[in-house]
Amino acid sequence: MAFKVHVRVVPRAGLLDPQGQAVEHALTALGFREASGVRIGKAIELSVDAASADDARARARAMCDKLLANPVTEDYEVEVEAR
Amino acid sequence: MAFKVHVRVVPRAGLLDPQGQAVEHALTALGFREASGVRIGKAIELSVDAASADDARARARAMCDKLLANPVTEDYEVEVEAR
Repeated sequence: MAFKVHVRVVPRAGLLDPQGQAVEHALTALGFREASGVRIGKAIELSVDAASADDARARARAMCDKLLANPVTEDYEVEVEAR
Repeated sequence: MAFKVHVRVVPRAGLLDPQGQAVEHALTALGFREASGVRIGKAIELSVDAASADDARARARAMCDKLLANPVTEDYEVEVEAR
């Protein structure tokens, strides 16, 4: 069965995020003064063939550990869409 | 009150996503043959000062329309974290 999986990879808390800072400044310049603490990472969507949702999640986590995320500088979250 | 907001910006369905294709090939090469349809976009986290969660969502959508997403090539989703 194919499960749709959403992965979010973001820079670890405490690490500098220049892209996020640039976007925050741009938001402020556009008048969005209520925005703060902007962090920018990657949103990855994929389809995973697996026997169960738990299995799909485990495979997606393995993909993050091996390729999708840098364990030194990034945190990731995996969400499997309910069918 | 400050609400934590997660924004996901991904290339529109049907549009070419070379970065996603490259990652899909790399996953296959690593043995993850169960992965397909990889799409890569931006994951944006920010804090929004607003009177209510609905208000925070509306402001975040305005930010997407004005700056965070390209309406021609990208779709976005806004999630406000429950407090």
